Amino acid sequence: MAICFFSAPKPITISPSTQAASAPKPLSRCNLSLPYKTLVTKADPEPIYSSVKAFAPATIANLGPGFDFLGCAVDGLGDFVSISVDPHVRPGEISISGIYGDNVKKLSKNPLYNCAGIAAIEVMKMLGVRSVGLSLSLEKGLPLGSGLGSSAASAAAAAVAVNGIFGNKLGVDELVLAGLKSEEKVSGYHADNVSPSIMGGFVLIRSYEPLDLIPLKFPMEKNLFFVLVSPDFEAPTKKMRAALPAEIGMPHHVWNSSQAGALVASVLQGDLVGLGKAMSSDIIVEPRRAPLIPGMEAVKKAAIEAGAFGCTISGAGPTAVAVTDSEQRGNEIGKQMVEAFLKGGNLKACSYVKQLDRVGARLVNSIHY
Amino acid sequence: MAICFFSAPKPITISPSTQAASAPKPLSRCNLSLPYKTLVTKADPEPIYSSVKAFAPATIANLGPGFDFLGCAVDGLGDFVSISVDPHVRPGEISISGIYGDNVKKLSKNPLYNCAGIAAIEVMKMLGVRSVGLSLSLEKGLPLGSGLGSSAASAAAAAVAVNGIFGNKLGVDELVLAGLKSEEKVSGYHADNVSPSIMGGFVLIRSYEPLDLIPLKFPMEKNLFFVLVSPDFEAPTKKMRAALPAEIGMPHHVWNSSQAGALVASVLQGDLVGLGKAMSSDIIVEPRRAPLIPGMEAVKKAAIEAGAFGCTISGAGPTAVAVTDSEQRGNEIGKQMVEAFLKGGNLKACSYVKQLDRVGARLVNSIHY
Repeated sequence: MAICFFSAPKPITISPSTQAASAPKPLSRCNLSLPYKTLVTKADPEPIYSSVKAFAPATIANLGPGFDFLGCAVDGLGDFVSISVDPHVRPGEISISGIYGDNVKKLSKNPLYNCAGIAAIEVMKMLGVRSVGLSLSLEKGLPLGSGLGSSAASAAAAAVAVNGIFGNKLGVDELVLAGLKSEEKVSGYHADNVSPSIMGGFVLIRSYEPLDLIPLKFPMEKNLFFVLVSPDFEAPTKKMRAALPAEIGMPHHVWNSSQAGALVASVLQGDLVGLGKAMSSDIIVEPRRAPLIPGMEAVKKAAIEAGAFGCTISGAGPTAVAVTDSEQRGNEIGKQMVEAFLKGGNLKACSYVKQLDRVGARLVNSIHY
Repeated sequence: MAICFFSAPKPITISPSTQAASAPKPLSRCNLSLPYKTLVTKADPEPIYSSVKAFAPATIANLGPGFDFLGCAVDGLGDFVSISVDPHVRPGEISISGIYGDNVKKLSKNPLYNCAGIAAIEVMKMLGVRSVGLSLSLEKGLPLGSGLGSSAASAAAAAVAVNGIFGNKLGVDELVLAGLKSEEKVSGYHADNVSPSIMGGFVLIRSYEPLDLIPLKFPMEKNLFFVLVSPDFEAPTKKMRAALPAEIGMPHHVWNSSQAGALVASVLQGDLVGLGKAMSSDIIVEPRRAPLIPGMEAVKKAAIEAGAFGCTISGAGPTAVAVTDSEQRGNEIGKQMVEAFLKGGNLKACSYVKQLDRVGARLVNSIHY
């Protein structure tokens, strides 16, 4: 289905970054008031390639006390998006030609209702594409609703692919905003998946208005392995969000904030033990969500007993994530966690041991005219 | 007044540090369940010196979103404690021989009710001192109740002095615990002043049970200046604490946690602009406390307008703290802040421009037998 998106874009306010960060407006939404690095162009750019293929990695949001503002990318798991210049698609429009992968039937081929489609449209808007039509093909490598940033990976891959086919005119911030537009429609206005999926590594979202992202560099010389264990269980994001407390007592706020600080310090200092301890230390969100995922508490216990430095829920679940410093130990920890899901929750699960993705979404293939 | 403190010390539980950090017990107090680096000795140590003098720096706690778990030390402001072996004091006891400085009349000379005395007694307990008596002299360089960690500096200097006279047998953790015992009695069980006063630099308090402190190293090559402006105004800690909300909405919690993470990242990355922005970003504590300090809102505005990267309340106030990267600009910012206190709050104020103290409490003089 081809959708014409081209209309006068909403005016974009370029707000200067103030010294004093402005207070958040809970429940309000970003009005794209981004201090753009690259100003949005209306140049109707020419494509550099006839087609490109992009990969965007899975992501782990929250990491315990980093709830709603911290995430990281994991290598070797993710989605692919191919974009081609298509003379059969009306200029300035985009069409989804195919969606491939397991259980993808519920994904819409209408670009306006598809994560990849929405992000692609946003990037086309930002670039001011008018003269060519595009077709998009999505290969889902990530299961839906698993807590691994599935929708964000589709959006990130699409944003990077469309940007790539026109010669990478947009910067990271714009791509994140395009991804956010997608996330807003399908899973909520949160950048803690889409930012690391685009940027790689660990990313802290400091604010949305203006968008302010802080990459947290994990030292290159350190080994960091994530053990990701996904059970056969649907944990709908809405239900997981409804489980959260509306109000938090001051001592709990102070505790979780200090653990968030410790989490950031551990990442920057490459302190794996500290990172694990911080991940495990959330007393606000995890205690509300874990009971909704059968076996999760037993899985966490099993991970720690098997030598993981820490364990928590990945995103809104149901995937559990543990950290360790070797692949071999990661495999053993994963085995114990899978067993605990079966024994403690009567759920089948599969495990992956993956490293940090330090690169983020990237073109993996391109064909010149 | 000499006080005999020697009695069988309470048993000290040496709890192994667990992988999963335990939840906080709000309002409970530390039971000294510290994984001691240096085991408490009962060796009745011999003094190495006949007398020593220690300095401990002033500290800025909270720094905005680091409320109750983050603090840093500032150079060139602080308290001095001298300790002497005194044959006129009964062995195993300590006496306060003098307290000097402005407005020190309200400070008790009974070591059990004096910040320095309590910390000194704790260190003597930890060391198992039985054979010599000590006398203590306190020189207050810091005004009381100013939000600059006055009581913590006295405690830190006393702890380091007593440890020093016996040859530095205790580690930093023990000294912090001794200081905490003092803070608990005089201003509340919080280590965000006493830890940086003893350790120097920035310190994050990750947990109390067990005590777990994370030093955050600010890059050596970066210049960081604090502008400290203290008005003639008493802001009693109790009143400032009573002003805090008991419950915090989830969006505010997420915001402040993310700013706490950004604060930690800025310190470790030496990002002064980010540090200032994070300091200025607290929407939970500062908005409740600032209105209780006449002129504080105007002072913050004046600091930012004069070019400070950020500004907030130091500790529980009334001192305002701003950050900048040069002494000259710091002086100008300080001038504007002093003026704003006068205009906006009808308060006289004095300003200091100080650098980060990276060393912490230390002996500044010692006399051998």
